[in-house]
Amino acid sequence: MTGRESGAPLGPIGNSPVVILVRPQLADNIGACARAMANGGLFHLRLVAPRDGWPQPKAWRNSSGAHRILDEVTVHATLADAVADLHRVFATCPRPRHIIKPVLTAHGAAFELREISNRGLRAGILFGPERAGLENDDIAAADALVRYELNPAFMSLNLAQAVMVMAYEWWTAADATPPRTLMTNETRVATKAELDNFLTHLTDQLDECGFLRNLPKRPGMVRNIRHFFQRGEVTEQELRTLHGIITELALGRRQLGRMETE
Amino acid sequence: MTGRESGAPLGPIGNSPVVILVRPQLADNIGACARAMANGGLFHLRLVAPRDGWPQPKAWRNSSGAHRILDEVTVHATLADAVADLHRVFATCPRPRHIIKPVLTAHGAAFELREISNRGLRAGILFGPERAGLENDDIAAADALVRYELNPAFMSLNLAQAVMVMAYEWWTAADATPPRTLMTNETRVATKAELDNFLTHLTDQLDECGFLRNLPKRPGMVRNIRHFFQRGEVTEQELRTLHGIITELALGRRQLGRMETE
Repeated sequence: MTGRESGAPLGPIGNSPVVILVRPQLADNIGACARAMANGGLFHLRLVAPRDGWPQPKAWRNSSGAHRILDEVTVHATLADAVADLHRVFATCPRPRHIIKPVLTAHGAAFELREISNRGLRAGILFGPERAGLENDDIAAADALVRYELNPAFMSLNLAQAVMVMAYEWWTAADATPPRTLMTNETRVATKAELDNFLTHLTDQLDECGFLRNLPKRPGMVRNIRHFFQRGEVTEQELRTLHGIITELALGRRQLGRMETE
Repeated sequence: MTGRESGAPLGPIGNSPVVILVRPQLADNIGACARAMANGGLFHLRLVAPRDGWPQPKAWRNSSGAHRILDEVTVHATLADAVADLHRVFATCPRPRHIIKPVLTAHGAAFELREISNRGLRAGILFGPERAGLENDDIAAADALVRYELNPAFMSLNLAQAVMVMAYEWWTAADATPPRTLMTNETRVATKAELDNFLTHLTDQLDECGFLRNLPKRPGMVRNIRHFFQRGEVTEQELRTLHGIITELALGRRQLGRMETE
């Protein structure tokens, strides 16, 4: 089964690392892995001795449209064959073993994978079978281990989740999005002069309505109001709305005042 | 159904953010979310109007032992009720909307969640239903959006994967593991003196066997050998093994030499 007709476009492929599932058991999981790979921009999938053979239609059904990855899977009888054309191999491995090997965090691994890829070399990342994980002989084929920093009291990590974490780190390692921005759409962040203009409007109206009639306390009250409006960024559009609110509230009060004095 | 008897211990709970699934559809996914939460040290789960009611045995079966989280789930008719006791609420939201709202990366959100938690305040993270995601009214209840940096050409992110990314970032935001270390177990990284000692042993044997007989080229050859052994960290135990290899190889050659001259 292939899904070339219905699969999603996955973006440019490039020299991204190869995900190698070693003796995977469930086709559902292989599909979920492909989906996670597509999320994080990993496009090359190899299977070493999949338990139930290959292809398996279930994988396509569980991939949410990441068909192109599954269509191009290669199957290998041995791990040695699956890594033969690669230059660097990392093995994801939750448990410490009695071996001498560099150990990377997922974040550290993604950084190094980007470096390797940028040098034009091909890297691979090994993921073990669902139950048992990678065996010592598999691990010996790797240059370094990747050990995720996760809750040591609950280490049962789903295979597709393991792929997701690595794919996520791979993608974000090349991403420069600031950790916090303000989404302003058609408007923009207001300048301090615009904010000041609004605060003057507000203070004038508060003087007029008597809210600030306690003159000894007035400076502190004005400052506290300013503190509130200064706490987060405010947009030019929001200031116009606030101007409108103040004007309308004040207008109602003035009309009421007129009625009361009539 | 509860799983108190068979569930895994999940580690200390503490003041970790509350995961709020808004109108979740599939009990399987709720179970998978609990598993991902346990992986990343998020222990508080609330459900707003779950489509199929609650509890659902399927969730426990798909949680890989994260029963304690499911046992303590609270169900809420409205989002307002689910966030009533919280101080800060973030909404995960893949698509830009026509709203003015701070937008955080998952990494940025995790950093801020740690700050909030360290101040003794309670935070919540909203995740929308599988198909449609959060609605505009849900998002209006949030202080900020969390938008994952992932492949824009393939945005179909499984609900449990979305929870996994946030849980992973939450955990690693408090983690100081160096991005690369050498796992040395019972041995340790060799000192430069120990490495030098080995290189002297090797060079002596190579002089003796004639490998370095080209005297004009000898300094460069010795340097190149040194470059190789200097490329990565080597352990004291590995140096002892290498000493042994050199000694044995040289011994065989000497014995052969003796036999040939006999």
